[in-house]
Amino acid sequence: MNMRAAFLSMLACGLLWSDEGMWTFDNVPAARIRARYGFTPDAPWLRKLQLATLRFPGGTGAFVGAEGLVLTNHHVARGYIQKLSTAGRDLVKEGFAAADRSQEQPLPGLELLMLVEAENVTALVDQAVPPGTPDAAALMARKAALSRIQKAREDATGLTCEAVTLYHGGEYWMYRYRKFTDVRLVACPEEQLAAFGHDPDNFAYPRHDLDFTLLRVYEKGQPYHPEAWLPPATAPLRLGDPVFITGHPGTTYRQDTQAQMLYQRDTAIPYAIRAAEARLKALEAYGATSAEARRLTRAAVYGQQNGIKRLQGQLLGLQKPRNLEKVQAAEHELKMRVGQDPDLLTLAGPSWDLVSRAVEAQKALLPESPLDGRHSVFQCDLLTQALMLLRLGTETARPEDLRLPEFREGALKLVRSRILNAARTDPGVDAVLLAAGLQGLLDNLGPDHPAVKALLGDRTPGEAAKAAMAGTRFQDLAFRKALLEGGATALDACPDPLLAFARVLDPFSRAFQKRQEDLVQGILTEQGGRIAQARFKIYGKAAYPDATFTLRLAYGSVATYPAGGTLVQPCTTFHGLYDRALAWGPEAEGGAWALPARWMERMGRLDLSTPLDFINSCDTAGGNSGSPAVNTRGEILGLNFDSNFEGQAGYFVYDGATKRSIVVDIRAILAALSRVMDAQWVVDELQRK
Amino acid sequence: MNMRAAFLSMLACGLLWSDEGMWTFDNVPAARIRARYGFTPDAPWLRKLQLATLRFPGGTGAFVGAEGLVLTNHHVARGYIQKLSTAGRDLVKEGFAAADRSQEQPLPGLELLMLVEAENVTALVDQAVPPGTPDAAALMARKAALSRIQKAREDATGLTCEAVTLYHGGEYWMYRYRKFTDVRLVACPEEQLAAFGHDPDNFAYPRHDLDFTLLRVYEKGQPYHPEAWLPPATAPLRLGDPVFITGHPGTTYRQDTQAQMLYQRDTAIPYAIRAAEARLKALEAYGATSAEARRLTRAAVYGQQNGIKRLQGQLLGLQKPRNLEKVQAAEHELKMRVGQDPDLLTLAGPSWDLVSRAVEAQKALLPESPLDGRHSVFQCDLLTQALMLLRLGTETARPEDLRLPEFREGALKLVRSRILNAARTDPGVDAVLLAAGLQGLLDNLGPDHPAVKALLGDRTPGEAAKAAMAGTRFQDLAFRKALLEGGATALDACPDPLLAFARVLDPFSRAFQKRQEDLVQGILTEQGGRIAQARFKIYGKAAYPDATFTLRLAYGSVATYPAGGTLVQPCTTFHGLYDRALAWGPEAEGGAWALPARWMERMGRLDLSTPLDFINSCDTAGGNSGSPAVNTRGEILGLNFDSNFEGQAGYFVYDGATKRSIVVDIRAILAALSRVMDAQWVVDELQRK
Repeated sequence: MNMRAAFLSMLACGLLWSDEGMWTFDNVPAARIRARYGFTPDAPWLRKLQLATLRFPGGTGAFVGAEGLVLTNHHVARGYIQKLSTAGRDLVKEGFAAADRSQEQPLPGLELLMLVEAENVTALVDQAVPPGTPDAAALMARKAALSRIQKAREDATGLTCEAVTLYHGGEYWMYRYRKFTDVRLVACPEEQLAAFGHDPDNFAYPRHDLDFTLLRVYEKGQPYHPEAWLPPATAPLRLGDPVFITGHPGTTYRQDTQAQMLYQRDTAIPYAIRAAEARLKALEAYGATSAEARRLTRAAVYGQQNGIKRLQGQLLGLQKPRNLEKVQAAEHELKMRVGQDPDLLTLAGPSWDLVSRAVEAQKALLPESPLDGRHSVFQCDLLTQALMLLRLGTETARPEDLRLPEFREGALKLVRSRILNAARTDPGVDAVLLAAGLQGLLDNLGPDHPAVKALLGDRTPGEAAKAAMAGTRFQDLAFRKALLEGGATALDACPDPLLAFARVLDPFSRAFQKRQEDLVQGILTEQGGRIAQARFKIYGKAAYPDATFTLRLAYGSVATYPAGGTLVQPCTTFHGLYDRALAWGPEAEGGAWALPARWMERMGRLDLSTPLDFINSCDTAGGNSGSPAVNTRGEILGLNFDSNFEGQAGYFVYDGATKRSIVVDIRAILAALSRVMDAQWVVDELQRK
Repeated sequence: MNMRAAFLSMLACGLLWSDEGMWTFDNVPAARIRARYGFTPDAPWLRKLQLATLRFPGGTGAFVGAEGLVLTNHHVARGYIQKLSTAGRDLVKEGFAAADRSQEQPLPGLELLMLVEAENVTALVDQAVPPGTPDAAALMARKAALSRIQKAREDATGLTCEAVTLYHGGEYWMYRYRKFTDVRLVACPEEQLAAFGHDPDNFAYPRHDLDFTLLRVYEKGQPYHPEAWLPPATAPLRLGDPVFITGHPGTTYRQDTQAQMLYQRDTAIPYAIRAAEARLKALEAYGATSAEARRLTRAAVYGQQNGIKRLQGQLLGLQKPRNLEKVQAAEHELKMRVGQDPDLLTLAGPSWDLVSRAVEAQKALLPESPLDGRHSVFQCDLLTQALMLLRLGTETARPEDLRLPEFREGALKLVRSRILNAARTDPGVDAVLLAAGLQGLLDNLGPDHPAVKALLGDRTPGEAAKAAMAGTRFQDLAFRKALLEGGATALDACPDPLLAFARVLDPFSRAFQKRQEDLVQGILTEQGGRIAQARFKIYGKAAYPDATFTLRLAYGSVATYPAGGTLVQPCTTFHGLYDRALAWGPEAEGGAWALPARWMERMGRLDLSTPLDFINSCDTAGGNSGSPAVNTRGEILGLNFDSNFEGQAGYFVYDGATKRSIVVDIRAILAALSRVMDAQWVVDELQRK
């Protein structure tokens, strides 16, 4: 079956939704786009989008001007803007607009990547693996080949190269990026505008966020002149108009088996919601003890609420029969095809059963999962840092191949930065979270479980948590730094109670991680890979690969969806911003819908009918923050900044009926710069032909 | 147990929500209101609200000025405004504002009632029933006593009297009303503003409707000077501020047993949703055949969609565990108390089981329920009218006590008006609904059921429906009138195919009605009454009686609720109106969010920050349309016009966490009159001290 036929077969089986997919640029479903929207993306159009799109740390952005202007979300650049702020001037809170080019502010540490060329090196990699090479040796040979090619390409081009595995090994690519390291802040609105509605409105729609930051790329001290950029769209945007979103979506699990999704739906997500609700309840109880406690817990409370909201959105999507029916139908067809081919049967025939068994093991291990030390332990920042420090000492003393995977050489930079990164500064809040986590462990495992016994002794979870936090100095960066640099000697000599607690936890945590790796993760990786290889052999590139932080194109249209008993409006305007601000007033929910004074004073300067945010059916994921939304003319319509509540299930399935990407409209950005932010010169530059 | 103790007991048991209840004016829970809102409704305040509130046909309104100005919802007065319209001038579409008092337009047929006095006549009625009187005789004696008292009071006062049964017979009252028959139209906005968002936004919130009409009551050709009226509120309204709503809620089923609610949740409502979805699908398929068919089916399509939305809202509420848990807890406590008292045990001990058995019978009869001729048959207006005409001939020839109940003397006026009232004018649409209904019957009962055999013969449902409608003249008012006046002779001689179809249907319909009455309705009424009497004997007036179209007071506050992943804004402003209109444009959904030209042209005249609609936690129901929302100073805050989607379960249970009444703000009404509707003189009159 050729690719087109395979693609049509998938559509006919209803295995792909209309606007589904995060497509690599070498494999854009042009015929499908033409059929839906009467527009064929051609090579120059695609090349322009590719070169105009930039990879940010954890997000995306785009060139929007001939002299290196770049747009991304405020929340993508926020950490860098925060570093510019001084005691006297909080640029995140107050916003910023350079008076002229000379006033643009360098953002140290921010590096942007532009994908210049993507080379399919599958054949080269395959050459390195003679037929019949055993699996482990083949893996090594492939890795070595990729390293060789990467080195050769970097030497030849001077570009930053990245080996990319697509379709779980169906294809190997060498992506070559141009890297920009001199990036300066041109303008950003007050965070209050960028994140209007704060956490309550997160994932909600209608939305009124002005989530943008304008930057400029410099090279050798001069504004960079990009080969391609996206000028602002000029034609009005209507319901049904096509929209394209380019960017670097991070992680999706679209190819998980039905058993894995059922596990998420019926076990893992409900478990995670219950745990988050317990933490939330504990935090709220603590917050109710004083105004100061309330202030200190606010961020953690919002964090839990947002986590619960995202999980509930995922659950809602997985609970919709049509979504899991789609997964089931796709799996059914794939299994059937595998069954018809002896080679594929050998490759992946038993894989679904093995995955299902691993999922059973995962379910059995779930009650002990809070012991896992690879992520945030009990969601306590300080304890997590203590455990990481402790392990760093132990692991770096071992030979590379005997270490825990997250402490091997390539990963150590990340571990060190996590240890040094800002932690919650109040051990009181961490004590609340630790107590809630220990209570959960006690409830899950009972008082006689060895880990529970060791961690609690004869104390209640609250007492144990309090003792672990009493007098700890882990909130002190200098303290952590000293421990990090002091190595094993400093650690051994350190009497900190939290480090002592981490020492008790460590062996149980390691034991859990080992079982989880042996019984679950190893099998899921191996068998999932086999299924993916079989899928690729059957469907080829009729399907799109799971998101991998690499450049993708999504397509769709401005689209409403049914919610709250009505149809949701396709866009909002500045009228809506003021409607919401006035309806709530400046005090509600900690000022979630308050507007800064100048936004009230300058209301009359704005054309309030200017579109502010709009929604579309493009298939996006985390990593698409700051992605340009583009029209058929290659003009920028706005910046993607969120997905709606109904779209949270997009990790697992794309539901075209209700999943929407939320975009801040370029017209609102221009109006804000011109009418409120005193940056008309920037607007003039953006609109220059 | 005294009343206060009983009340506190109900609260303590969690049997009443915080703001629950539609309270009679003799029994306002003042202590509870004081505890919640720091305000005690005293006698003068209550008297003022009572006299200012007016009963409309199917709705409520209020005096708002010293010279007889009255406010109600546009949708309450719409039918009367429609009658004023001429071919040249559509007042519903265009709106209206009298240039001065002399231009106010009489609305013939509109009668308003003001509750002057409510007299508790329970003792008088009880005197008429000596202890030991058998049930049937007691019923007759009570009816006779109420008639006697009514006659005596009407003769003595000249007022319109109405016998009111509360608590299912716990109390008998004589309500005395002053009736107003000269009511004139002063001003109303375009229906497009009154019902902005049309059917899609029905039950939805945030909402932007200006659902008001301003009338004036005249007596003897002069403006009437009411004893009490509600001036416009002047202070700003904030989240949490107390709100009171007076009015005439129609029907609630709050005292149904748990078995009845489970039947609704698990059987009746899902059945009704499926039937409505089948009708909707059939209508949409018909509408797709031509532009004209689409136009003709539009109203019916919206009707089905709204019906489905309301049912889904009810289902959602009944599916919330906390709601049925409340019903269960109340029932559990009531049963326990009944069990402790031998008299009550005799009265109502077996009643719950008998109700449950009747509910089982109801479930068994449900598949045949489309045969019921007491309501709309298959939702076909024309067939319903044909069957009523046919039965009117048969029934009026019989002695009163042998007639179907709905054809006894007191009810005939209603039957005649239903026959003559505007019917759908396109038999094509009715044929679609009839075909869908017959298909449902066939699916429910199978082809061998006698009714199916008789109605279909060897035809498909579509063929049978088409034949019944082919050449019918029932859409012609003159034809129906002639049949109505011609009596049995005219009916016998009439060859209309729809009448012929009604003749075939009639015997099956009567048989169904008889079984339904014998096996279900009679038992539910009798046993439900016994349970209600027991409840009244235990709790007395600690509970509120189910709604009966009589005057009630509801209390609550301006309140948000969680929906769509965020908190819903407590009010909207004119900014929101324009935001929504601009977002959708004038064409979307048949112009649901279009604004008339003058509203676009005069936008600049309005202070767009003026509040438009707000939500509150008052317990309201159908019949509260047009009810004044009042503050503690007895000033009008606005007019209740809808409940949110989450509030639709209010028929069965009040859920204070999410049930909200939606009010159009008086400030928006004043602004519209002054700035857009050219009626400043009316605003001046409303604001006169």
